[in-house]
Amino acid sequence: MSTKAFAAFSATEPLRDHTITRREPGAHDVEIEILYCGVCHSDIHQVRNEWHNAMYPMVPGHEIVGRITRVGAHVKKFKAGDLAGVGCLVDSCRECDACKKDLEQFCPTSVGTYNAKERDGKTITYGGYSTSIVVDEAFTLKVSDKLPLDAVAPLLCAGITTYSPLRHWKVSKGQKVGILGLGGLGHMGVKFASSFGAEVTMLSHSASKEADARRLGAHHFALCSDPAVMKSLAGTFDFILDTVSAPHDYNAYLGLLAVDGKMVCVGAPPEPAQVAAFNLIFGRKTLAGSLIGGIAETQEMLDYCAEHSIVSDIELIPIQQINEAYDRILKSDVKYRFVIDMQSLK
Amino acid sequence: MSTKAFAAFSATEPLRDHTITRREPGAHDVEIEILYCGVCHSDIHQVRNEWHNAMYPMVPGHEIVGRITRVGAHVKKFKAGDLAGVGCLVDSCRECDACKKDLEQFCPTSVGTYNAKERDGKTITYGGYSTSIVVDEAFTLKVSDKLPLDAVAPLLCAGITTYSPLRHWKVSKGQKVGILGLGGLGHMGVKFASSFGAEVTMLSHSASKEADARRLGAHHFALCSDPAVMKSLAGTFDFILDTVSAPHDYNAYLGLLAVDGKMVCVGAPPEPAQVAAFNLIFGRKTLAGSLIGGIAETQEMLDYCAEHSIVSDIELIPIQQINEAYDRILKSDVKYRFVIDMQSLK
Repeated sequence: MSTKAFAAFSATEPLRDHTITRREPGAHDVEIEILYCGVCHSDIHQVRNEWHNAMYPMVPGHEIVGRITRVGAHVKKFKAGDLAGVGCLVDSCRECDACKKDLEQFCPTSVGTYNAKERDGKTITYGGYSTSIVVDEAFTLKVSDKLPLDAVAPLLCAGITTYSPLRHWKVSKGQKVGILGLGGLGHMGVKFASSFGAEVTMLSHSASKEADARRLGAHHFALCSDPAVMKSLAGTFDFILDTVSAPHDYNAYLGLLAVDGKMVCVGAPPEPAQVAAFNLIFGRKTLAGSLIGGIAETQEMLDYCAEHSIVSDIELIPIQQINEAYDRILKSDVKYRFVIDMQSLK
Repeated sequence: MSTKAFAAFSATEPLRDHTITRREPGAHDVEIEILYCGVCHSDIHQVRNEWHNAMYPMVPGHEIVGRITRVGAHVKKFKAGDLAGVGCLVDSCRECDACKKDLEQFCPTSVGTYNAKERDGKTITYGGYSTSIVVDEAFTLKVSDKLPLDAVAPLLCAGITTYSPLRHWKVSKGQKVGILGLGGLGHMGVKFASSFGAEVTMLSHSASKEADARRLGAHHFALCSDPAVMKSLAGTFDFILDTVSAPHDYNAYLGLLAVDGKMVCVGAPPEPAQVAAFNLIFGRKTLAGSLIGGIAETQEMLDYCAEHSIVSDIELIPIQQINEAYDRILKSDVKYRFVIDMQSLK
């Protein structure tokens, strides 16, 4: 089926109109009319081939919300007219240890929503910067009608990326939690951590972010560029969610952890960080990483958000502004996620 | 009380005979005739002021086993004639969060067995290279008479240093565990991990260590200098205990971890290691550290060893050979711990 899309044709050209072909829905597939698609920083990395695996033309977008238009013969979870979401994955092997543990994101042959090859090894996947998508129902999420759909879209990546580690490491009431960095990921981290009952401190290098951090749910704001602030917080946090993908000093933040404290990275700086073993040994501290979340947990997150009225703070744009939006993202000039109104492509 | 000891008088001189003063046992103290004292690599670091906090004359030794000779009026756990052990700590505040959680090793004012100041801020502590020691019973361990006492001594540091992380991270049957490095720590790591039921692989750069690793309980041996071996083991370990204190490539070993795998450092290289966040994010992997263990867990470890006949492999020396022993430790020429027979000092 011929489908309208916006695509990158090289690492250096602006994205522009394109037409792609979507498969006819198979027995287990749903066809989704895409209503909104969030713009993730990784879209820029991929479009600009910064991860050295770009396949052009590339149709980015893995924060997809829409409405089911058709379902395959064996589809059980969805019917035409239902709201639905698609995140970073559209398939996996379903047989490996990771898949069996509902951790499809770690399946060695999982299939990314765009710039990836389907499990047939040939077909290139195209993402959410388009008017429709066809996805196996097993990788399609149910979306509540209680929340504004445009602000739900970023939950499919920024939401699950922060929800999953906070849940996995059991962040809860009585814990002191630091959220490092206030961007697309960090602002969701603040919302979730405070919703889970933790005492949340925004760790930031920009004093200008204090008011917004508090509005989002942070109980405290710590200006990390101030050595006196850092010293006063030494040994105090049970958990730090590190959402920063620019190079930064891991040891400084490990020093803020209490005994048995854990710092979990969801942002990946381009170069390896320096980590002094002493900073882990004294205090039995953990440095760990986390990657989005499995399908079951993504559904759990969406359900939690519907129940607790949690969405992303967004700026809605027509797709014709996507190139300008990329430039603004690189300047951190967005609060806190651009979402494309796909009506603009129709 | 005037007490015979062996001491370092500077960072560069050989250790030699010295006489120290031990306090009269207070109401909660026990006096221990030291029978054996293990020689820890950290004794050399401290003697040679490599941690920049040496106080001379320094009497090293924190792997102490002996017999109670006197007890204070309020001592409850011990009586004269009992066997006893002392590890790396002789006191702590007993009030902080760490102390309340039986993690005295992380008490900010815990007192090391030697080269430390008592909580009075003045008295220097002297360790086990001496004929007797006076210690609060709360920091004195019960020692079984079922095991050879000389081979028990290293359990007080090398034993608990490896036992504690394997227990804390719940290493058990059905898990694949790598022990990185076969020295004083590594050989205890192999014994404990295999005793706990794990499938143990010795990770080493020396093919010559294979036979010994298997004798100690390792089920497999992996020569880490062979890229084909490393490739074949990628993504396979649930847990790696890193006992190496020489600089090494953390990322290479993180690559051997399975999804949710954990690598725990008990050796501290002098310089920070490079850690790529991607290597933690993909697979939700953990890099952590661990430091000896609390007093209650040290007792648990000693009791476990008595029940399961676990001791250190040792080479017994008279104290007059301590300087030569240091040189041999630096050449990794010991299987796997020197223990001083304190009769040689009497």
